[in-house]
Amino acid sequence: MTETTKRHRVVIVGGGFGGLEAARELRRAPVDITLIDRRNFHLFQPLLYQVATGELSPANIASPLRTVFRRQKNCQVLLGEVTDFDADGHRVLLRDGEIAYDSLIVAAGSTHSYFGHNEWESLAPGLKTIEDATRVRKKILLAFEAAEREPDPERRRAWLTFVLVGGGPTGVELAGALSEIARHTFRKDFRNIDPAEANIVIVEAAAKPLHVYSDKLSGKAAQALDRLGVHVRTHTKVVDVQDDHVVLESNSDRETLATRTVLWTAGVAASPLGRRLADATGATTDRIGRVQVEPNLTLPGHPDLFVIGDLAHCPDENGRPLPGLAPVAIQQGAYAAKVIAGRLENSPAPPPFSYRDRGSMAVIGRYAAIARIGKMELSGLVAWLMWLMLHLMEITLFQNRLLVLIQWGWAYLFRSRAARLITGPVEPLIETGNAPSDRKSADARAGQTANTTT
Amino acid sequence: MTETTKRHRVVIVGGGFGGLEAARELRRAPVDITLIDRRNFHLFQPLLYQVATGELSPANIASPLRTVFRRQKNCQVLLGEVTDFDADGHRVLLRDGEIAYDSLIVAAGSTHSYFGHNEWESLAPGLKTIEDATRVRKKILLAFEAAEREPDPERRRAWLTFVLVGGGPTGVELAGALSEIARHTFRKDFRNIDPAEANIVIVEAAAKPLHVYSDKLSGKAAQALDRLGVHVRTHTKVVDVQDDHVVLESNSDRETLATRTVLWTAGVAASPLGRRLADATGATTDRIGRVQVEPNLTLPGHPDLFVIGDLAHCPDENGRPLPGLAPVAIQQGAYAAKVIAGRLENSPAPPPFSYRDRGSMAVIGRYAAIARIGKMELSGLVAWLMWLMLHLMEITLFQNRLLVLIQWGWAYLFRSRAARLITGPVEPLIETGNAPSDRKSADARAGQTANTTT
Repeated sequence: MTETTKRHRVVIVGGGFGGLEAARELRRAPVDITLIDRRNFHLFQPLLYQVATGELSPANIASPLRTVFRRQKNCQVLLGEVTDFDADGHRVLLRDGEIAYDSLIVAAGSTHSYFGHNEWESLAPGLKTIEDATRVRKKILLAFEAAEREPDPERRRAWLTFVLVGGGPTGVELAGALSEIARHTFRKDFRNIDPAEANIVIVEAAAKPLHVYSDKLSGKAAQALDRLGVHVRTHTKVVDVQDDHVVLESNSDRETLATRTVLWTAGVAASPLGRRLADATGATTDRIGRVQVEPNLTLPGHPDLFVIGDLAHCPDENGRPLPGLAPVAIQQGAYAAKVIAGRLENSPAPPPFSYRDRGSMAVIGRYAAIARIGKMELSGLVAWLMWLMLHLMEITLFQNRLLVLIQWGWAYLFRSRAARLITGPVEPLIETGNAPSDRKSADARAGQTANTTT
Repeated sequence: MTETTKRHRVVIVGGGFGGLEAARELRRAPVDITLIDRRNFHLFQPLLYQVATGELSPANIASPLRTVFRRQKNCQVLLGEVTDFDADGHRVLLRDGEIAYDSLIVAAGSTHSYFGHNEWESLAPGLKTIEDATRVRKKILLAFEAAEREPDPERRRAWLTFVLVGGGPTGVELAGALSEIARHTFRKDFRNIDPAEANIVIVEAAAKPLHVYSDKLSGKAAQALDRLGVHVRTHTKVVDVQDDHVVLESNSDRETLATRTVLWTAGVAASPLGRRLADATGATTDRIGRVQVEPNLTLPGHPDLFVIGDLAHCPDENGRPLPGLAPVAIQQGAYAAKVIAGRLENSPAPPPFSYRDRGSMAVIGRYAAIARIGKMELSGLVAWLMWLMLHLMEITLFQNRLLVLIQWGWAYLFRSRAARLITGPVEPLIETGNAPSDRKSADARAGQTANTTT
């Protein structure tokens, strides 16, 4: 290229749904795009729970960003970590450098919130990243392995008790997949335990699971969960998480539940970059750290700085903030791109952003899902097939689509899970949670278990 | 089962090729088998380099042991780490327990050897485990990312220089796959570098790569490597490995080669359990820690204790130890199983173990391989197709076979690699290797790189 005029520089922070859409939407605009992400891939988060339960491999739901933008010559991908913003100087600061922009789109997403109990994080992993998913997978698989080796019935019961904090879509999806593993995939795999005895508990503070749906739909979901043997504890909060138990509170009654596996699907907080942005621009953040945006998704006084997706606090027509969903981020990414491209053409400014809600869906288990499309409500097999088609269509790269379809087909036909790998260091299964002084007796127990079956 | 007579207890340590074959071969024998492994899966090691280069996902080459033995009712899988043996007491000691046996088969395999330079391990990873493979994958992918951001030509050159220590099958396979990535997969993915400029160097102490093959075949391999742009340095040793260079020695001439990626495919040592076994039984170990076995693969004075596979020092008809290859381990596993089953039937002892060498093969790259089948020697496309069929047949579980075939087909047709994920923490790309005092200038440089392209 021999172009000598300097092109408009668009920097996009974050390669999630919003950032990806913004970059793609600008493919024909006379701009130079730099997409910055800490990771070299776009993650299809809605299927992360299937990695956590061994149905899919990490690579099945991750598309390398360089591959996605291979043919989009006006877009370059930068692997790097953004640490701060210089909004007045039009610069993004990286951990190892800086980069100047004419327009900036920040789509840094969200992370877990443990409601002020960060000490629970190491005991109750969440599900936002590939590493989270393989960590959860390891935790689940090791729990069954430990139960297989544990002779004491009470301890074995604790290993086979899985507590999911939060009855939202992720909690429900994980519970359904866990039930599938326990009742079917693992049915003939163990010799000392019956994996179907696994006790799967969803703890939900609200009156029902999937509470953003209508009573009719969430009722259907509750029924489906019941058929899967999942226990849903509504009006219940987790007030303590320990290595071998959780404490639940319901109507100010407290109860201790012995468990070795607690998974966190409850709280969400905006990326810490929201705070940095607010400091750099004078914008305000809400309770969970999202940045309040103008009706055109820019920050007050900074018309070139857009915030989109989970990081943006953007009110709907009723004044309530839009939820942290992929469709919201995608539409916002497209909108920000349109504003930037329009300005370069001196087109009149588009009307304020408004979210077009096409509906939403949640999957519960094999052949069971609920869906709302506009005013229409669906459940059961029809909703599940819709969920399947939609998610398959949305997986970014074609090869992944094919691999995911085969892996799904296989898993559903034969109820097997190929990606059941425990990787990384493994602590001794029998000692875990015992005091060091307990080691000798643990050894003896383990010997006993082993001997009873050999 | 209401069986009351105590069955013969067979304990197998290690779920690799040898251990797996022994357990399967005993499927109809009146024995109770316990297969112990630190991992919950069997790893198809010959394809590990394809995980390291992003062609396959870890789950594609790993078969969960419980799935493999689901239907074999006389076999139970135990996830555990063996620490020692009590040969006289007929017990295997685990990190968290112990287990008694009537017959024991130890197939604990091998690990890397850095020829007394264990300090090189953190700089030059080897390729034996899934974790090794994802670590190597990360190192390779990050090197290209760092080169893309590095403005200094000399430093960029170091990032694009890949040194493979060892010209055996793994080194040659990795070099071929690396060349494929650099020249084809990544061709259009970067904006500041030409990945095809990658400098891939094999360092081999012997006179030729793949030196166990005939001059004709290894000559063909050398030609194929040359066509792939891989430089083979024969008669050359690595005498130092540092973060940003290696020192090579050839005819007592020393040379420093700037590189940020050194991969270790040279030395092999038996599992440390070989030492434990020798201490427990009075058996002797060889130079690389393998245990010397009797002609029937048992240890002297311990007719119930078999050692097979990479851990066994078992001489061939010329008195040279058999190589650490999958077919050797498989045949030894079947032999040990036959001896055990025969004893229970009071059959006469079989003749001493002898390895039936059906041949061997090594793949170099796309459509290029060499193969020796008995006296017949093949190379090029024919050998490559044979390699493909054989490896596809040998992948343990059917679903994996299908997934691997699709992923291979895709990679070969479109030269793309789906499993290009950098996971785990990433250090700042530009700072790495700089002294802390260098940080400011590194920042400035990084800013400069970023700015030149935005």
